[in-house]
Order: sequence, then structure tokens, then C-alpha cells
Amino acid sequence: MENFIAYNPVKLIFGRDVVNARMKRELSVFGSNVLLIYGKGSIKRNGIYSQVLTILKESGKNVFEYGGIKSNPLCTDAQAAVQLAYENKADMVLAVGGGSVIDTAKLVALCSPANDHVWKVMKGEVKPARALPLVSVLTLAATGTEMNQFAVLQNPDTGEKIGFGSPLVYPAVSFLDPAYMVSVPVNYTAYGIADICAHLLEAYFGEGDAPLSDKWVFAIMRELIEVGEPLLKDPGSYTLRERVLWASTQALNGTTLHGRKSGEWGVHDIGHTISFLYDIPHGATLSVAYPAWMKHLLPHIQQRLKTLGENVFGVNDPEKTIEALTHFFRKISCPVSLAELNLQDKKSEILNLMIKNKVSGMHFKLTEEDLLRIVGLM
Amino acid sequence: MENFIAYNPVKLIFGRDVVNARMKRELSVFGSNVLLIYGKGSIKRNGIYSQVLTILKESGKNVFEYGGIKSNPLCTDAQAAVQLAYENKADMVLAVGGGSVIDTAKLVALCSPANDHVWKVMKGEVKPARALPLVSVLTLAATGTEMNQFAVLQNPDTGEKIGFGSPLVYPAVSFLDPAYMVSVPVNYTAYGIADICAHLLEAYFGEGDAPLSDKWVFAIMRELIEVGEPLLKDPGSYTLRERVLWASTQALNGTTLHGRKSGEWGVHDIGHTISFLYDIPHGATLSVAYPAWMKHLLPHIQQRLKTLGENVFGVNDPEKTIEALTHFFRKISCPVSLAELNLQDKKSEILNLMIKNKVSGMHFKLTEEDLLRIVGLM
Repeated sequence: MENFIAYNPVKLIFGRDVVNARMKRELSVFGSNVLLIYGKGSIKRNGIYSQVLTILKESGKNVFEYGGIKSNPLCTDAQAAVQLAYENKADMVLAVGGGSVIDTAKLVALCSPANDHVWKVMKGEVKPARALPLVSVLTLAATGTEMNQFAVLQNPDTGEKIGFGSPLVYPAVSFLDPAYMVSVPVNYTAYGIADICAHLLEAYFGEGDAPLSDKWVFAIMRELIEVGEPLLKDPGSYTLRERVLWASTQALNGTTLHGRKSGEWGVHDIGHTISFLYDIPHGATLSVAYPAWMKHLLPHIQQRLKTLGENVFGVNDPEKTIEALTHFFRKISCPVSLAELNLQDKKSEILNLMIKNKVSGMHFKLTEEDLLRIVGLM
Repeated sequence: MENFIAYNPVKLIFGRDVVNARMKRELSVFGSNVLLIYGKGSIKRNGIYSQVLTILKESGKNVFEYGGIKSNPLCTDAQAAVQLAYENKADMVLAVGGGSVIDTAKLVALCSPANDHVWKVMKGEVKPARALPLVSVLTLAATGTEMNQFAVLQNPDTGEKIGFGSPLVYPAVSFLDPAYMVSVPVNYTAYGIADICAHLLEAYFGEGDAPLSDKWVFAIMRELIEVGEPLLKDPGSYTLRERVLWASTQALNGTTLHGRKSGEWGVHDIGHTISFLYDIPHGATLSVAYPAWMKHLLPHIQQRLKTLGENVFGVNDPEKTIEALTHFFRKISCPVSLAELNLQDKKSEILNLMIKNKVSGMHFKLTEEDLLRIVGLM
């Protein structure tokens, strides 16, 4: 194992009706001026918006809103929200939505105190000294952002979609009510599950020996395999929603990485490129890219694939592990080829942007030749 | 799953030479007056004491010391240390030692600001509003106290050994260097492993369905089974020490309990009674008590035992699970009967104190008849 620091200060409040039960109390320690950030309006249709607004009013908060955050969120939206927070002297940021909304809110919380330039902060060119406290209410199980220090935004001007991490952007409090997810459409539920799988694999294929973290990866993956298909058949099930939701948080809250030198993240980089070009949901790009990445890297990851297969899929051959993963993605109706996304003719375009953006992994560095072959396998 | 809050603010710094590398920096945010708490002097023999004292001096701290904390630690020692901290206006507490030292330091940190009565705080009769920051340097892998909010002390006057929990006593920072454990004697290493197993089982036999937490219990338990016996044969191995150490922290930092209504803790209560009466190391009482508790509870925990056996020991019968656990304890040279502790004639005495102290579990409530039968099986 490598030396590591285990630290995650997020207070995560999980379960049925937790927003009504605890939000007022948790908000009481923060100031009165609240910037509320949300997405395209689904929270207005399902009642979460009015529930939260009632609590904010009863708490005596002054609320100003920035709605309309889209999936594959833009730094330009974050910048506009920073402006709003700065002008209104926001004391805290409240994000109500999925990963896109919370990721946006993380940068808003970080850039608002000094009205900083969001993309420069993302790029590490500006380093804010502090952030506003961030409270999140999650409405989609997938990215794990509710309990980590990461955010991913894209820049429509430069053609980049990149990740950012800082201990300053851990949410102070996150509310996770599985009942909020029962109205998530089946396809987005499935993409979320593919994303969770990919997070586990990005940890597992990282650098360094971390036997207990490996076992934790296997445990969460088996949990997903147990509940994934049943949930898609019964999307209204609270019990299945809560299991996927909790797996989702655990898959990317740092606990799968303890003792490793790094994660891998090459497949996420590939997926971000496809999402950027064609606005494909994140998880749907990962279920296409992971099997292709594995097939191409096979000679280098034989033993890792074998161990994964033995512990998760009950197979004992590296190629069978890839088949089993592909089969699982298919069973939950996630695409496993570019053709299924109607992108079979776009391989050159995808390759060119990957090369331009220097797409690579952290452990297995990908050359242009590697990228060419991986795209060929997708 | 039950509603739950996942929250653990401890910054845990793990790996080789972390004290030299990071302690000065971490201590810089706290005040100058440091109460240093340690045990019977092993840290003076192995050099950790002088290493820490050098760092404290270079950090410009005023250090006052309370040494001599014994295993199965006493509230009277904690009270004397509180007095010392209060008189010297301590800004922080630094604990260097195993679970006994850190548990004592937790109560000292909590009771020092107002010079509170330690046992009254343990009993919940006095509730301090704040605690001094606590930094710990762990020297023995077992109790998990370095990353949780719990402490166990005993009162020599009342004959009680009880647990206490409060979010105020989470260490701010804990340093875990596996190299500090290579000099731990083989028998105490084994008792530590038995204690870790028991922590996992106390979570697993708690109330409520928590499928992912169950899988995490199985993962940590398999890790222990992989490394337990090899470590006892090669106690100088850093690689094996680090795996047991990390398993130890994870087994009782809250992560095995998420989604459960409660843990069980009946066996710990039984073990505390034996430790109190005969000053037997904690882990050695648990390897005796757990198989007996399981045999007695068998009709009520058949399915749980079967699932545990399938996932951890590769057996598919409840009684075989008990056999496999007993076999594991034997393989690591832990006692599995009172006779092996030379206490075969003390069953009445043990039973009487258990009855007097109202020993029970949280999920499976034990009657006097239950206790009689469990002691009979030990």
C-alpha cells in the first residue's frame, strides 16, 4: 500500500424524508443569503423545489436562484451563478439536483467569495483561499459528487471537459432521499449504474496494491449486479433505489482509493470527449468505452481482470470478465458500442478531439496509437 | 435500510514515517499547551516518545505529560489527567499509544475545558459543550478508536466497564504508521485481530437490513483471514502489519453500520466483564465469548450465520460457520474457552457480575438464563 490520507468531512444524511426532518436544523448554522442552484426544472414538476423553498422561507433565508443547469454542465453557467452570488453577498450555496447541478455548485461556492474566474480555477491557474459552505440535495444516483471533492465541467469555447478537485469543495451537508429517485427515467437510472461501475473500475485499475480497497470495489460491484436489473424492472422500488444510491455514494467518496498511488480515469477521459461532442449522457459513454479499453489493454491487465472476474462475476478468465461486464451493461440496456449511439461514422472525429485534448489515463498512459485502437473497438 | 447519518471528520494519515513527515504541519493549527498522554512506557523503549517530543519541541509547544495509562484503562487516570490539563490550560491533547491511551485521552479532551467529572460524563449525567482538539498517534492495531467517536473506560470503585460515544471526541488527526506495530508482541497482535473480528460481528449481528454494509463486513473479515496467520508467523512484516492496521480502522469507523438500526455489542459486554474481573486482554475475552454466544443464539441467527459462512469461510451451514470462526481464532493462538484462560472455575463469579451489571445486547437482549447458558458454553 502507498501512504495515504483518509479524510472526508461531509455530513451525509440518508433515508426517507430526511429533507423535511433535518434540513432546517442543518441550515441554521449558516448565514441568511442562500444561492439556490438547480437544473432544467424537474424539481419543479416533482415537488422538491417547493418543498425546499418552504423550508428556506421558514428558516428566514433570503433566496436567490440560478436554474437551468444542463447535464454535461458548462463553466459559463457556473460563472453567471458566481456573479449572482457575489452581487448578492451569498453566505452559502444550496444545490438541488444531480451531479451536474452539484458539480456546478461546487465551483460556484469556491469562486464566489472573490468573484473568481471559474475556468481559471478549474485549470489551477487561480487558487481561491476559501469557499462558501455548500449544502446539496441529491436527485440522481450516479456521480458520487455528494460526498467527494471533485467536479467536472465543460468549456464550450475550448472544447474541453475536465475534472477538478479541492478539499474546499466538499459539501458541508448532503441530503440523500431515495424516494427522490423513484421518478428518474429508466434510461438515466441505467446510465447512472454504468457510471457507478466505471468509478469502481477507475479505482481498481489505478496504480498500486491496495488489497482491502480491491475487496471494497468487489463488494460495491456485486451490490450493483444484485440490484441493477431488478431496479430497471421495478423503478418505483424504494428499497432498490436506496441500495443503488448508497452504492453510488460509496463508489466515489475516496474509500476505494485508500492505499493506491492513483486511480486510472482513462476511460472517463474518453467518455468526456464523446459527451462533449454529441451531448451523450456520461454513463452511456462509459458503458461503450470500458469494454473497448479493457480489450485493448488486455495484455497488461490480465491478472487484474482475472481477479475481478473471480470476485465479481464468478468467472476465472480475463476475457470472460470483459464479456461478463459487457453482458451486465447490456442487461441494464446500456449501449456497448458507438453504433448503438448512432455514432459509428464518427470515430475519426472522436479520435481527433481525444488527440487534441491529450486524452490519457493516469496509470496506463494512452498513446495516439492506443486511442486509435480503442476507438476502433468501440 | 434504516435512515442514517454518515459523518466522520477524522483526518487519518496512514503510512510509513507519517509522524516525521506531517505532524509538525498538523499541530501548527492548534495552541501551544499540549497534554501528552501515553501508557506504560513502551513508547520510551521503542523511540516513539523521543521522536514525538522532538517534534513538539521544534513546534514550540509547552508539553506536560500524563503517562502510565494501563490496558483496560481507568476513569481515575483520566480524571487525574483532566486535572493536569485544566491546571495547565491545555489547548490540545496528544495521545500516543493503543486503544487504552486514546480512549482515555478522548475523555480527557472532553472533560478538561470545564474540569468535568469523567465518570459522570461517561454515564451521561454531565454533558460537556465542547472538547479540546485531540491528536492521536496509534501504536497498536485493534480498537479502531483512532477514527471513531467511542471510548471504553472502567471504574474500579463501581466494578463497571462501559462505553461512551460523542461526536465531540473524534480525533482531529490520527497518525497510523504500521512500522510502529512491528514490535507489538505476537500474542497482543493476535488479540487485536480477535478484537477486529468481533467489531465486524457486532455490526453484522446488529438490527436491520444493510446489504452493502454486510458485504463490507465480509470484505474486511476476508482481509483478516488472509493476513492474520501469516502476520503471526512473520510479525516483523510491514506489509502484513499495514493490512491488519487498515482493516482494524475500517472495522469500527462507522462504515459497517450504515443503514442498520443498531449494532449488537452483547459479546463485548460479556468480554468487558471478564476483563474487569481478571485483567484479561480485551481481544482474548472476545475469542472466548463469541463462539459461545453464537452457539447459544443459533436458533435465532441461522440465516445470518449461513450467509456469513458462505461469504467469508466458504461453508454453507450455520454450525460450520461457528466452527470456522473458532478454528480461525485457534490458528492465531487466541483462547476459545475459559479453561484456556485458567478461568474454568470462575463461571459463577463471571455470571454474577454480568447479572449485576445488566449485561445484554442491543439487538438480541440477553436474559439471566441466556447469560447462564452462554457462560456454560465458554
